Amino acid sequence: MERTRLSFIVDHPVVAKQWSEAMARAGKRVEILVKIDVGFHRCGLDPDSRDTVATIREMAALPGLDFRGLLSHAGQAYHAHSEDGLRLMAEAEVRTMSDLASWCRAKGLAVDEISLGATPPARFSLQHEGFTEYRPGNYAYFDRTQVALGAATIDDCALTVMARVVSKPATDRIILDSGSKTLTNDGARGFAPAPGYGVILRHGVPDDTLLIERLSEEHATVKATTGSTALEPGDRVRIVPNHSCVVSNLVDQAWLVDGDAVEPLPIAARGRIT
Amino acid sequence: MERTRLSFIVDHPVVAKQWSEAMARAGKRVEILVKIDVGFHRCGLDPDSRDTVATIREMAALPGLDFRGLLSHAGQAYHAHSEDGLRLMAEAEVRTMSDLASWCRAKGLAVDEISLGATPPARFSLQHEGFTEYRPGNYAYFDRTQVALGAATIDDCALTVMARVVSKPATDRIILDSGSKTLTNDGARGFAPAPGYGVILRHGVPDDTLLIERLSEEHATVKATTGSTALEPGDRVRIVPNHSCVVSNLVDQAWLVDGDAVEPLPIAARGRIT
Repeated sequence: MERTRLSFIVDHPVVAKQWSEAMARAGKRVEILVKIDVGFHRCGLDPDSRDTVATIREMAALPGLDFRGLLSHAGQAYHAHSEDGLRLMAEAEVRTMSDLASWCRAKGLAVDEISLGATPPARFSLQHEGFTEYRPGNYAYFDRTQVALGAATIDDCALTVMARVVSKPATDRIILDSGSKTLTNDGARGFAPAPGYGVILRHGVPDDTLLIERLSEEHATVKATTGSTALEPGDRVRIVPNHSCVVSNLVDQAWLVDGDAVEPLPIAARGRIT
Repeated sequence: MERTRLSFIVDHPVVAKQWSEAMARAGKRVEILVKIDVGFHRCGLDPDSRDTVATIREMAALPGLDFRGLLSHAGQAYHAHSEDGLRLMAEAEVRTMSDLASWCRAKGLAVDEISLGATPPARFSLQHEGFTEYRPGNYAYFDRTQVALGAATIDDCALTVMARVVSKPATDRIILDSGSKTLTNDGARGFAPAPGYGVILRHGVPDDTLLIERLSEEHATVKATTGSTALEPGDRVRIVPNHSCVVSNLVDQAWLVDGDAVEPLPIAARGRIT
């Protein structure tokens, strides 16, 4: 904490109190951002509850904590049915957070940070004012879900899995060495069609005649929807996964590719899952 | 290879040829087992094809390889609809493999090993003769899928995930620090109902009023179906996951618990995913 600016997200007085006590014991203070539920209904205080500002004030008053502001994640955007749906979610999030910040300020709380963040609605959120930080986490790599949500094109997707054909048991079926332990069992979300467990690239271009229809742990079962494919055992393909975040967590290192230059990038946070 | 008995599974002449050449270059030989597709339609030679015995003979004749026998995995058992379905799948697998071994022997091939293996039908397969090895991989830990398939009871499940309540945003909702990076997004398979992403144990007993209805990467959203739960932030619970195999791959070590004795068990194969 001497060398970095650290802030915690809290949304419950019990947890805030424990952090405060730990900081007080260490003779330190830590910044907190209070999580607000803007519609995903996972964590976060209800912005429409009359108790919410009082709860924020209660946590902000704890001796080991410095209240810094409000934070949200519009995860419901992953379930949007259209561009318009995303646009409306982005507007609603900004309005909800701005309004709540105003109520906090009216009660004497200094709200220095209003932090929003989700990759799918980012292009609409960024057209608004009323927040100080935006955290589009998936933006670093993008993935097939973001393509299906209109947030990226397939060419924007920077993370691919290199897989090898290990069997061809029938003319219309090849087996790749990339199962659920590589691609994860996450389906793609979004309003554009995205069946299967990722999109197979051939020479950098999606081959929509190859459907990754099933994953076992170490195997992908790929159907050639035209009845046959030229791919044979030993051939390699690249796959844009449905969800890049969970894929990175499964490997010790990624490979940065720039033309012919390739260098390893250790995944420092690998397996740091709680 | 000097210190261990190693055998490879092959189901395609191209792959077998490459192994044979690699072994020949190294001045060694390696045992092969030929994979047969007994109904899962992933890898494996078609046992009903008239070409199959010829393909096996072709691979068995390669100079770097020693043909040892046949191998199968009745993965279709995970999609069984009943106990009777499992029983029939077990019978069919044994019969298919025995018949194919006989045809191979009639063509002059020595079939020393007939290796079957899948945890769901194991209790029926083991009532038969006609194979030399059984490989029930999930048997080491079991999991909620095996319970839903009648292969285990919840008390048989040896692997649990310890999770902590990190928020309680509503009386009917708690958030655990075990998301898809811990439990994986694998649903349970089987013919007994098993909704959600694992079963939460309280004092060692399943609490069916707690439904793990959604996973984010680091969060489990748990609904208290009775409208409330006594669990509060800071409390810990154990979860029997839907699929133990993929869960073990996500951690550096498991903890062996025997009464009050606890010791770490490193996951040596972690991330060795291809």
